[in-house]
Amino acid sequence: MNSNPADPLVIFTPSGKRGRFAKGTPVLTAARQLGVDLDSVCGGRGICSRCQITPAFGDFPKHGVTVKPDALSDWNAVEQRYKDKRGLIQGRRLGCQATIQGDVVIDVPPESQVHKQVVRKEATVRAIVMDPATRQYLVDVAEPDMHDPTGDLERLKRALCDQWQIDDLCADLAVLAKLQPALRKGNWQVTVTLFQDHRGGPAQLLDIWPGFHDAGLYGLAIDLGSTTIAAHLCDLTDGQVLASSGVMNPQIRFGEDLMSRVSYAMMNPGGAADMTTAVRMALNGLVQGLTTETGIDPALIYEAVLVCNPVMHHLALGLDPVELGQAPFALATSDSIALPATQLDLTTLNDSARVYILPCIAGHVGADAAAVALAEEPQKSEDLVLIVDVGTNAELLLGNKTRVLACSSPTGPAFEGAQISSGQRAAPGAIERVEIDPVTKTPRFRIIGIDIWSDDPGFAEAAAATGITGICGSGIIEAVAEMRMAGILDGSGLIGSADQTGTPRCIAQGRTHAYTLWDGSPDGGPLITVTQGDIRAIQLAKSALYAGARLLMDEMGVDKVDRVVLAGAFGAHISPKHAMVLGMIPDVPLDKVQSAGNAAGTGARIALCNTAARAEIERVVHQITKVETAIEPRFQDHFVAASAIPHAIDPFPELAQVVTLPDISFNTGSDGAGGGRRRRRRG
Amino acid sequence: MNSNPADPLVIFTPSGKRGRFAKGTPVLTAARQLGVDLDSVCGGRGICSRCQITPAFGDFPKHGVTVKPDALSDWNAVEQRYKDKRGLIQGRRLGCQATIQGDVVIDVPPESQVHKQVVRKEATVRAIVMDPATRQYLVDVAEPDMHDPTGDLERLKRALCDQWQIDDLCADLAVLAKLQPALRKGNWQVTVTLFQDHRGGPAQLLDIWPGFHDAGLYGLAIDLGSTTIAAHLCDLTDGQVLASSGVMNPQIRFGEDLMSRVSYAMMNPGGAADMTTAVRMALNGLVQGLTTETGIDPALIYEAVLVCNPVMHHLALGLDPVELGQAPFALATSDSIALPATQLDLTTLNDSARVYILPCIAGHVGADAAAVALAEEPQKSEDLVLIVDVGTNAELLLGNKTRVLACSSPTGPAFEGAQISSGQRAAPGAIERVEIDPVTKTPRFRIIGIDIWSDDPGFAEAAAATGITGICGSGIIEAVAEMRMAGILDGSGLIGSADQTGTPRCIAQGRTHAYTLWDGSPDGGPLITVTQGDIRAIQLAKSALYAGARLLMDEMGVDKVDRVVLAGAFGAHISPKHAMVLGMIPDVPLDKVQSAGNAAGTGARIALCNTAARAEIERVVHQITKVETAIEPRFQDHFVAASAIPHAIDPFPELAQVVTLPDISFNTGSDGAGGGRRRRRRG
Repeated sequence: MNSNPADPLVIFTPSGKRGRFAKGTPVLTAARQLGVDLDSVCGGRGICSRCQITPAFGDFPKHGVTVKPDALSDWNAVEQRYKDKRGLIQGRRLGCQATIQGDVVIDVPPESQVHKQVVRKEATVRAIVMDPATRQYLVDVAEPDMHDPTGDLERLKRALCDQWQIDDLCADLAVLAKLQPALRKGNWQVTVTLFQDHRGGPAQLLDIWPGFHDAGLYGLAIDLGSTTIAAHLCDLTDGQVLASSGVMNPQIRFGEDLMSRVSYAMMNPGGAADMTTAVRMALNGLVQGLTTETGIDPALIYEAVLVCNPVMHHLALGLDPVELGQAPFALATSDSIALPATQLDLTTLNDSARVYILPCIAGHVGADAAAVALAEEPQKSEDLVLIVDVGTNAELLLGNKTRVLACSSPTGPAFEGAQISSGQRAAPGAIERVEIDPVTKTPRFRIIGIDIWSDDPGFAEAAAATGITGICGSGIIEAVAEMRMAGILDGSGLIGSADQTGTPRCIAQGRTHAYTLWDGSPDGGPLITVTQGDIRAIQLAKSALYAGARLLMDEMGVDKVDRVVLAGAFGAHISPKHAMVLGMIPDVPLDKVQSAGNAAGTGARIALCNTAARAEIERVVHQITKVETAIEPRFQDHFVAASAIPHAIDPFPELAQVVTLPDISFNTGSDGAGGGRRRRRRG
Repeated sequence: MNSNPADPLVIFTPSGKRGRFAKGTPVLTAARQLGVDLDSVCGGRGICSRCQITPAFGDFPKHGVTVKPDALSDWNAVEQRYKDKRGLIQGRRLGCQATIQGDVVIDVPPESQVHKQVVRKEATVRAIVMDPATRQYLVDVAEPDMHDPTGDLERLKRALCDQWQIDDLCADLAVLAKLQPALRKGNWQVTVTLFQDHRGGPAQLLDIWPGFHDAGLYGLAIDLGSTTIAAHLCDLTDGQVLASSGVMNPQIRFGEDLMSRVSYAMMNPGGAADMTTAVRMALNGLVQGLTTETGIDPALIYEAVLVCNPVMHHLALGLDPVELGQAPFALATSDSIALPATQLDLTTLNDSARVYILPCIAGHVGADAAAVALAEEPQKSEDLVLIVDVGTNAELLLGNKTRVLACSSPTGPAFEGAQISSGQRAAPGAIERVEIDPVTKTPRFRIIGIDIWSDDPGFAEAAAATGITGICGSGIIEAVAEMRMAGILDGSGLIGSADQTGTPRCIAQGRTHAYTLWDGSPDGGPLITVTQGDIRAIQLAKSALYAGARLLMDEMGVDKVDRVVLAGAFGAHISPKHAMVLGMIPDVPLDKVQSAGNAAGTGARIALCNTAARAEIERVVHQITKVETAIEPRFQDHFVAASAIPHAIDPFPELAQVVTLPDISFNTGSDGAGGGRRRRRRG
């Protein structure tokens, strides 16, 4: 960006940000320098396609520019290869490859914006008993007496003891500096905000005002995920959620999944610190967004509760996660953590704000799983419940009031649409629901942002705004399950040929086949297929998930569970029937598969609003039996057996009552069936 | 320890503790079971050598034992390796390696005791018992276990509890980040530096190293005065003072005395913050100087103890001192303060270093007075002692074992040479001692930096280097007292004319006179006189001091005290006889006037080295009766009566035994005698 009037003028929409850049500057570079919200995961290598932009040509009197047809560079080899292989919507370019050659107006479509993702971590409606650690008290303080001199703080302590039975008090210097003016301005009556730790110790003076003051008291429940960071801004007086928001975890640019971030930390000196800085900045940005949206003064946010997996936990705390990348997966610290927000550089909150981080259960079962346990309370369940929190890493809890077990399972990011040929994050334009007619083998689907199905009247018009851009996590699960039910996919996970299935939608790709969900190419859109490779990725993920559940069932000494709870953003959108057709989860009656929504976020809210819940979950976590999948030989056996769809060995009698799966095999001996090459992943 | 009469009898000296132990019991184990004070950092691993003991052999009729040559085990490999590598004093053994084989008498040398006594070098010989809040421990930590996953910090806690009976532990993130690498590098053995607050709460992990580490452990005792800031760098393992240093308080540029600094804060927005920044920078500079001088790594300084008057206290803490400038002189906080050094921007110490600030006694009687009380222990005195800490503000303690009173008195800076026409700070060239011949009225004097008197041969040559530049605090006191004794000054404080005194050294200055101490003008030097204005300034100061003492005596219900202790740098240089001629202090036998040197600094050192002393002074401060001179009508009466030299009313019989003061009056009716206009000052 410069002010050389000879350089081309670049105007981004919808932000309206503009600047002049030397010819040859990539669009992504210009966007970053202007602070335009343009996504990129690969860092400009033309791989991730997250930076897609749409140049506009012609006269723009409003902007005072005329954009000529050659305003952007010609397609280079990287961009052309991407288009040929994956397809690009008509008019789209890759922002990292296209360079500026003349004055240009560039539109950033919603799905290319980092901050416009639909983050499916809404606050679950749920009643929480209010018992916050941070509360306000009005107190009358004795005036100073020269004949019995004591400090103002000491007289405030005395008054809190006498009037509120609060035994001891401490104050940081910044708050102490406000004490004397407040006492005098309030004529020896002040309102104080106190934090009282559930583990005891003196109350902490977080803030003080003259007289009676009721401006508000707010807290944050933060679910720091590998991919998304979600936060609820809560009123600490009544527990109401005033706003919820989510942003992408900016650490994604260091690595998509947890293990690649740990690797990044190992390979790059200062890499862990860079990721720490990135996530802390994102947290501050999230808070700013929430306070701007609600108009609430950020200085009135006195507490934050943080839940996250162990790698996020360490990176947020500024601890090198290297030990979490290798056996024995030792956490630097596993107990809950209470500390000043400033220690996490959370400068957007009140200066004295406190942060509470739930305990981790084990090296792969984090504070997020503890939060799920807090929300779903398996330790109080009469029946045997399996709770599955599917994120980039799946965390599982199995238990009832007698005993609770926990493990994590390295599902990888396939369930979130990553590593899927047409996969994408949940965003407008993404296919999220799929049905395939078992007779015609014709699919219909729904995309995020539109309430009608693809074969309903008006769909094409409605979809024009976003296009049909790819398949998100819930979409790929439904697609694969529907393919299995419609006889396009056999039990081993093999897609049949057009001849075998009787539909031209099955197209040959080398020695394997792919099923065509949507062909947008006549309109310049993408060809969206489910490939054999996609099936293998889903098989790996679902086998890992099921094997983790089986391992817990072995430890518990049971062959079946009574109930399955699906937690996480993904769990809220998944179809229980389709999940069970895939064999993701153990066989239970369909009405015993429940969605807990964002249980981790709910757990964080509970801990935020109820200090006794903090003590409770600390107690419960110590009682949970941890099962380490990485060192358990049976995990491998369970994994292999779970590769078939739904399963090679285990019967699914409950599923059979609802769905009859075609008994077919497309194996002609030329391609191996089943689980494929075993790849172990974490994250 | 047991009562089996067949087991060997072990007797420790000098404690005399004894018990029977099974053969093969290590000496360290026996000592611990008997509660014998025997140090160990490594906990019995033969590494730290702190547990050295000296067995005694032969007949001990007093103890009823005979010790045979084989009463202790032979040297084992560990002990032999230590001796070969590091050396051991002849006759010494390592208590953790040598085991009991027969009846034995074991001496614990002073340096092997945890609670060893440190003999204070300066002034009165006095011992500090070591009992520091910061100590090192060698600890073996269990390795992580995937089947029972816990954090490394949690296993360190467990190990500290098991091996050192330390119940709880907390760690800042910066130290926590060092934990995992240290444990692995040390093969699960680490040395930790822990801070244990005397008021309880978890121990704080200040630092950690792989394996056994004995680089050193240091602390600072800081006396933050209005004019000078002095610090002692101490070894926290044995209490030795490694270096002492002082700098001018840079706040002087905002105001010479305390009240002018309070005024500066009131008059200038941000003025208090500027003074806070200035003093914190000076403290950092002081630390840098001490560490450069000694070559000690500043990161090995883990603690600082700070004593200061209330205004310095507030400014150091970043608190606006405005309330200390007006009745009722309310402190923001009066209790002791423990906080991280980083909160005071003391960035030169270890990042986790702690600061302890002694409690303030009242709005004008600060943590420095508390430190004087800790050093001089009036609460334990059999006789009635008046302790006077003369700085820019005088703080007085009066008491004995039944009761202790405290007040401050606004002497102003005259005793420090300020507000005196030829006054200057104590520096080379300043007149510090004065004698005036009562017959010739001729003075002789000494200047700082030169050991001979001004009438000795060679003085002129010796003084040439610095010149004779002015009069410092002790010099002006001696000059005024000598003028009184030589008949140049009458009892009301009036300087006689040349005619009245018979010396041309008394020169007219308007309607008053001045006495010429030194006329350097022939050589281009200053004319150094004591003016009538100087006498008035000294009268104001000494009246305030004496009135404060009298007020305490009134409160105590006494007319005389048994002993006077002069504390502070000034107290170390003042001549008791001259002070009493002036009537600065109550009349006591001259040999009952003692100098305590820098008692506040000594108190800071005691608090640094002995954590129980912190609890002790906190208790004592609460029991001290505070007397506020500013609101006490009798103070004014005492003040007026004390204006005369030595006093208008009170007899000075002890003084009269040593000195006969001329009974003269120079009052001719043209100039009022006595105290002059009453000006009240603080600071």
